[in-house]
Amino acid sequence: MTDENTYTIGVDFGTLSGRAVVVRTSDGAELGSAEHAYSHAVMDRTLTASAANVELPPEWALQVPADYVDVLKTAVPAAVEAAGIDPAQVIGIAADFTACTMVPTTADGTPLCELEQFADRPHAYVKLWKHHAAQPHADRINDLARERGESWLPRYGRLISSEWQFAKGLQLLEEDREIYDAMDRWVEAADWIVWQLGGQYQRNACTVGYKGIYQDGQHVGEDFLAALNPDFATFVQDKLEQPIAQLGDAVGHLTAEAAGWTGLPEGIAVAAGNVDAHVTLPAANAVENGQLTLIMGTSTCHVLNSDELHEVPGMCGVVDGGVIAGKYGYEAGQSGVGDIFGWFVSSGVPAAYTAEAERRGISVHAYLTELAEQQPIGGHGLVALDWHNGNRSVLVDTELSGLIIGQTLATRPEDIYRALLESTAFGTRTIIEAFTSSGVPITELVVAGGLLKNRFLMQMYADVTGLPLSTITSEQGPAVGSAIHAAVAAGAYPDVRTAAASMGHRTVGAYQPDSEATAAYDRLFAEYTALHDYFGRGENDVMKRLKTLRREAWEASTSDGVSAPTLEVPEELS
Amino acid sequence: MTDENTYTIGVDFGTLSGRAVVVRTSDGAELGSAEHAYSHAVMDRTLTASAANVELPPEWALQVPADYVDVLKTAVPAAVEAAGIDPAQVIGIAADFTACTMVPTTADGTPLCELEQFADRPHAYVKLWKHHAAQPHADRINDLARERGESWLPRYGRLISSEWQFAKGLQLLEEDREIYDAMDRWVEAADWIVWQLGGQYQRNACTVGYKGIYQDGQHVGEDFLAALNPDFATFVQDKLEQPIAQLGDAVGHLTAEAAGWTGLPEGIAVAAGNVDAHVTLPAANAVENGQLTLIMGTSTCHVLNSDELHEVPGMCGVVDGGVIAGKYGYEAGQSGVGDIFGWFVSSGVPAAYTAEAERRGISVHAYLTELAEQQPIGGHGLVALDWHNGNRSVLVDTELSGLIIGQTLATRPEDIYRALLESTAFGTRTIIEAFTSSGVPITELVVAGGLLKNRFLMQMYADVTGLPLSTITSEQGPAVGSAIHAAVAAGAYPDVRTAAASMGHRTVGAYQPDSEATAAYDRLFAEYTALHDYFGRGENDVMKRLKTLRREAWEASTSDGVSAPTLEVPEELS
Repeated sequence: MTDENTYTIGVDFGTLSGRAVVVRTSDGAELGSAEHAYSHAVMDRTLTASAANVELPPEWALQVPADYVDVLKTAVPAAVEAAGIDPAQVIGIAADFTACTMVPTTADGTPLCELEQFADRPHAYVKLWKHHAAQPHADRINDLARERGESWLPRYGRLISSEWQFAKGLQLLEEDREIYDAMDRWVEAADWIVWQLGGQYQRNACTVGYKGIYQDGQHVGEDFLAALNPDFATFVQDKLEQPIAQLGDAVGHLTAEAAGWTGLPEGIAVAAGNVDAHVTLPAANAVENGQLTLIMGTSTCHVLNSDELHEVPGMCGVVDGGVIAGKYGYEAGQSGVGDIFGWFVSSGVPAAYTAEAERRGISVHAYLTELAEQQPIGGHGLVALDWHNGNRSVLVDTELSGLIIGQTLATRPEDIYRALLESTAFGTRTIIEAFTSSGVPITELVVAGGLLKNRFLMQMYADVTGLPLSTITSEQGPAVGSAIHAAVAAGAYPDVRTAAASMGHRTVGAYQPDSEATAAYDRLFAEYTALHDYFGRGENDVMKRLKTLRREAWEASTSDGVSAPTLEVPEELS
Repeated sequence: MTDENTYTIGVDFGTLSGRAVVVRTSDGAELGSAEHAYSHAVMDRTLTASAANVELPPEWALQVPADYVDVLKTAVPAAVEAAGIDPAQVIGIAADFTACTMVPTTADGTPLCELEQFADRPHAYVKLWKHHAAQPHADRINDLARERGESWLPRYGRLISSEWQFAKGLQLLEEDREIYDAMDRWVEAADWIVWQLGGQYQRNACTVGYKGIYQDGQHVGEDFLAALNPDFATFVQDKLEQPIAQLGDAVGHLTAEAAGWTGLPEGIAVAAGNVDAHVTLPAANAVENGQLTLIMGTSTCHVLNSDELHEVPGMCGVVDGGVIAGKYGYEAGQSGVGDIFGWFVSSGVPAAYTAEAERRGISVHAYLTELAEQQPIGGHGLVALDWHNGNRSVLVDTELSGLIIGQTLATRPEDIYRALLESTAFGTRTIIEAFTSSGVPITELVVAGGLLKNRFLMQMYADVTGLPLSTITSEQGPAVGSAIHAAVAAGAYPDVRTAAASMGHRTVGAYQPDSEATAAYDRLFAEYTALHDYFGRGENDVMKRLKTLRREAWEASTSDGVSAPTLEVPEELS
């Protein structure tokens, strides 16, 4: 029996592991998958990859590039084997990655940490997205951009993140000049892994736009960079500049070496790199204007296409071709969603509840949800603000914090849990209203990510927003999205939009808003909005003062040998 | 061996039991005590004292007068026996009671519920302080008093409580006219028990002032009462009016019948009745101007003497001779204190904490306190409002609710616990500032009640207020306070003030404010005050709207057979 189908491989590089999936190009069917955990995971306390005992300062988060290659060597062949297909029928491969995750390399792509003389130097390693030690550098970039009125600043909600290419690059320059000078290329991991697969280095349109401050065909100017630090003036031309690939473009073909690692045919198409959140849209076949995709995990990433360019207040970024070529890709986000629910379950739910959930063999989340959904809307008498991890959109302020109001002696854990669920739905509605009122209409929600399994939460999002809510079919959205890009790169489809129509799937309108529920939530949302604006827009900056007070208090007490409890910064995707 | 000492008995009638203590008149030494629980406890669902199966509506709370007499018959002789004294050396007895707790009686003091024909009628029983079913009647009293500009209204923080004599009396009139007409006297339980002991009925100056709207020698006018309900016009003269006894006066002498119950000598002095909170001040020897006594339990009652009459915003009441004759007694309150801590411990602390506390054999409160006190002031980054059970002073608003602000994903249970402790200290400071700015200075805090055993909390109160804090020595403050009044009634001392100086005890300045800590708390208190005023004084009435929404939501869903979780209203004293 001959299988006349063709297949592509999508590889999703997450924070702790990489996952490969084999997808049929005709219909997107997932034939098999495999996962491989990075040996060094995240290095955030010591440089475990080095024999020397090097401690890392707070807020650092590093990785080892060879761990990524191990995913190609193990997960890819395992997925092919699990799929039971003939590797000869694989026509392309693509990868998506966490971002902004940066690899310092030599001119041929060799990571500096792989050079013996730099093996003990933290700055020679990969700076993972959640490396937050470049905050002072980001602050300087933002201050200067505001001062100079840089035209690209509004494209990023007026805030460049400490996670992005320039802040991390400036930190490297100023903290380890020798490494900086030895570095020929400052490479997004999404592009680096493609370079390893296909032997070519191009920068993908997604990360170059969202993380690399590339707008209207232009990079950040030399004079701006010189004002930050004279030695940073030529950072773009020295370390970044490279041809830019549109998403779905082929960037080289599988090299003999990579064919050896993966067991795939040498010479098959390798697609341009991509970001885990953005690549999910084709997997849900949700690339049309007005379809807002929410990747809901520990945090939520909102991605949307439009034919028009608008400046939406508080968005994370808008990039031409950032999701599919020919459209403007918009991104917004909520920095705490599943994380907030998780925090509450681990720190705020009494023993009787955890015991009952255990007795019934369900998660505490499921148990609380079950209790919470028995009450009428507004029945808990509570409103919460979902800023426990700051506010990414639309306020773009990491110094904001959580709030809950309305507690009585009769308030129960399920009441608070429900108020927290609702607060994240209100946060999403606030983002939607920012898009809508800026000329970017939204007509459908599309949900991907781990939280879609909570049916009560999904209905709540539909009701709160008054929009139909569709859910992605695949449980491996990013990897399938990559496989779709591989199919386009291999020529199986003319473009990503067409490929998505065949290979991407969602349950359209799985949840419909109930107009009575929407009206009831409107009253709570009005309260949310009043509190959102009062605490978030400067009328009462108590949250910021409390954070300042907290820092000062712990700094003053450090001499007593007491240290502040640390905040575990969560992953962007679960 | 002959014991030449004399003794008095104090009996403290609480919500669920009565406690008798034998006290030496020379120095206040407590020789023995005994407690007796009421057989019928609190009747709040069914009229368990009756054979008929009578259900009670929501918010009702009734008691059985015979249960109080049982305390005289059992706890008093048991306390005398435990003390090992000769009953012949007892020279007086006094009682304090929960208030406002009302007994409907015939002209000779027989409770109507003891008449066979009324045994099945709820309105024939004692209405306990926490009977809250007269709220609509209280609302009418307040509306009318505001409309007419009644001069007594400011003496009660501009709010007459549903718990007090007039609201409960009006409910009785309008809901069971036959019982109302059969009732010759509407008697405070504090006075009723004295009537049983000494055979005389006088109204004590404390409850007549705080609960009976008696000010400047005048009762509420007939025209006011007629405007409420024409048949209520003569309520005062028909049901209430009676000679008024000052605190420490003898009100009759122990009858032969009561001597039989108690085993005490017939003819010994019986002192005027009193209220549990107010009677505690002499027990702590804290009756001078400027000494603010806090009875801290589930809620906090603040009581203070002054030579001057001032209208303090949001106080619960000011009464001439309300604590000791010749001074104005001021009362204020926080409607949730220990209750809020208890609510958090039972509903917001995870299994790991309760297990660790159990392993170490300490209470969860003690464990959380131990963790909380390790952090510097402001180290949790939180501020809370202590309104989970409404705000008694200074806002006088039961529709307010709790708030906590500043949570992050790093916020731990001990952080929230500490913020809740602090919120109650800030609430007390707000009350102190209301007194101070109204011309009633405060120079010392004196703490009684169950919470004084938390040393961290006590130091916090001293630091937050910047005042020295003394603690009562006795663990049975109210009963000892009653015994002091009995000593005065018996002539062992000329007045309560003198008796308190010998028999009442406190640890003066047990906690001294730390000026550095006070300065640090000042910053948090400023945030508390801003939130207090914003949410409490009408700028944002979100709390009220949420309560309205909650009620409407549950009412609308009642048809679905779902009912709202009920709020257990806590006792005034623990």
